[in-house]
Amino acid sequence: MRPPLRLHLNENTGGCSPAVLAAIRGLDPLEASLYPDYTAVTAACERWLGAPPGWVQLTNGLDEGLHVVAQAARPGRAVVVEPAFEMYEICATAAGLGVTRELWDPRAAFPLDAMLDAVAGGASLVYLTDPNNPTGLPIPEGAIAAIAAAAPRALVLVDEAYAEFSGRTCIGAMLDRHRNLVVGRTFAKAHGLAALRAGALVSHPDTLAPLRRILPPFALNICAARALLAAVEDRAHLDRYVAQSASSRALLYAFAERRGFRYWRSEGNFVLIEIGPRAAALVAGLAARGILIRDKSASPACAGCVRITAGIVRHTEACIAAMEAVLST
Amino acid sequence: MRPPLRLHLNENTGGCSPAVLAAIRGLDPLEASLYPDYTAVTAACERWLGAPPGWVQLTNGLDEGLHVVAQAARPGRAVVVEPAFEMYEICATAAGLGVTRELWDPRAAFPLDAMLDAVAGGASLVYLTDPNNPTGLPIPEGAIAAIAAAAPRALVLVDEAYAEFSGRTCIGAMLDRHRNLVVGRTFAKAHGLAALRAGALVSHPDTLAPLRRILPPFALNICAARALLAAVEDRAHLDRYVAQSASSRALLYAFAERRGFRYWRSEGNFVLIEIGPRAAALVAGLAARGILIRDKSASPACAGCVRITAGIVRHTEACIAAMEAVLST
Repeated sequence: MRPPLRLHLNENTGGCSPAVLAAIRGLDPLEASLYPDYTAVTAACERWLGAPPGWVQLTNGLDEGLHVVAQAARPGRAVVVEPAFEMYEICATAAGLGVTRELWDPRAAFPLDAMLDAVAGGASLVYLTDPNNPTGLPIPEGAIAAIAAAAPRALVLVDEAYAEFSGRTCIGAMLDRHRNLVVGRTFAKAHGLAALRAGALVSHPDTLAPLRRILPPFALNICAARALLAAVEDRAHLDRYVAQSASSRALLYAFAERRGFRYWRSEGNFVLIEIGPRAAALVAGLAARGILIRDKSASPACAGCVRITAGIVRHTEACIAAMEAVLST
Repeated sequence: MRPPLRLHLNENTGGCSPAVLAAIRGLDPLEASLYPDYTAVTAACERWLGAPPGWVQLTNGLDEGLHVVAQAARPGRAVVVEPAFEMYEICATAAGLGVTRELWDPRAAFPLDAMLDAVAGGASLVYLTDPNNPTGLPIPEGAIAAIAAAAPRALVLVDEAYAEFSGRTCIGAMLDRHRNLVVGRTFAKAHGLAALRAGALVSHPDTLAPLRRILPPFALNICAARALLAAVEDRAHLDRYVAQSASSRALLYAFAERRGFRYWRSEGNFVLIEIGPRAAALVAGLAARGILIRDKSASPACAGCVRITAGIVRHTEACIAAMEAVLST
């Protein structure tokens, strides 16, 4: 049986760069059995991310980074903008932080005033995602800076898992100005390294220092380290996938417009579409045809919405054809 | 310049099994870019560890497991038997647990009464290492059961990182009887997968459930998963290293006896030797000859002690020859 087409987890369904696999194949027995050194791969990621030396801490996927940031923000309270990646609340709760949820209905503006109120209430951690997942919406210009300035004693984690698609980042002047900002990055999405677990926290070295004391000394697998070095050097592979994703998003917008579904223009490699009461039947119908998409109905403000990965164009085309077929029955 | 001989981190300096590298080489672009499935590797590890289905949770090295256990034991207090692996206290503190330290001077008996008192004082977590690192001593029979029984509401983590060398484990009847016991295992040492970051927590599924809610869903790198599957199937490679380690320990005991140094018979792939005031000079002299060993002088009850990895016999012989040379100058 053919494996299903996975368009439910924002994965890169085109696969990683061949250079990544070549780098992993070169591993020898002692490189596997001795604890790794991260000097070269960290420097390469600093260059790739445009961060000064010492500003990047690699992690076992960004998930590990989310845990560490929560632990460093203990004791206190975390503010989460919903709908959001489920790990934020898991990490905050595991660290013993209380959780305040602020709703960002994608039909309305970013709730900046509510966020500033929540932060003024004594938050020790704010989780932001830019662009947001699952809506794909960008956090409006100035909002991150306003939140960071309003909460100088809190850590403000800006999850930029989809920054390669949005083309925006806080790394640079913004991160330099607000020392309580920590940018989270992953190489799982645009670089196609989801199974290799490679993420990064980017911030001023003084802000990273307490996080580094919590992290295990050897968080990153040697294969992830080698993969990262190769991935950031294959700019062409990345650019192709980012271009395919832009085309796929346009196809999904056109599908939604044809069908009269509300959708949101996305800065990530996914599109949220409001199907309405037939959402669950659509997801099930696609699964029966071997295509997985994500029913987000259980997420705040997402009733009747599905999230579809927008990556490789031929996969998007197959998904749209299947959706048309299911919706026409 | 030749890389140094690393006998300071209890690594397997013989390297991993060739089957491990072959398994990693087979990775294809989509296996790298899609989130992995751990069903097969978890089942293989359950069989290898002699645990029933559902009793093993793989982690990104045991370090991640130590963090998760501490987070699950919040709020409360952790008891650590010193000298101990430094990560225990880092994990407990990061989780917001207080830390009570109990000294196990290797010149004296295991402090069971003091441990039972500490546990009766309301500990929510106990970290034990069997055999101990850096002394290599086994926890006496019955002590783990007594501690687990005395602290039914606490998690008792038994770090068995060196179980392949000791031949002892709590997995089996003991783990079945004490549901608050969690065994920690790693494939870094005997299996030579330190750089691949593969560890495991073993316990009753009801005990693992809250830990699993904290762990990221994709903790293990796909290369670690493939490596593990291959490593647990190459029993001969493991047996060879375990036999080499036993021979190396005997050589180190003989060295210590010749020189009149106190040492401890070890159940791990390392030996602790009390050199005395010349310990730092010995470590420095060896480093100048390209051999790294660990000065443990800063650890409780370890003044003047060095810890030497006891693995591949020719590496141990080189180390002993170098020690003789340094000590004779």
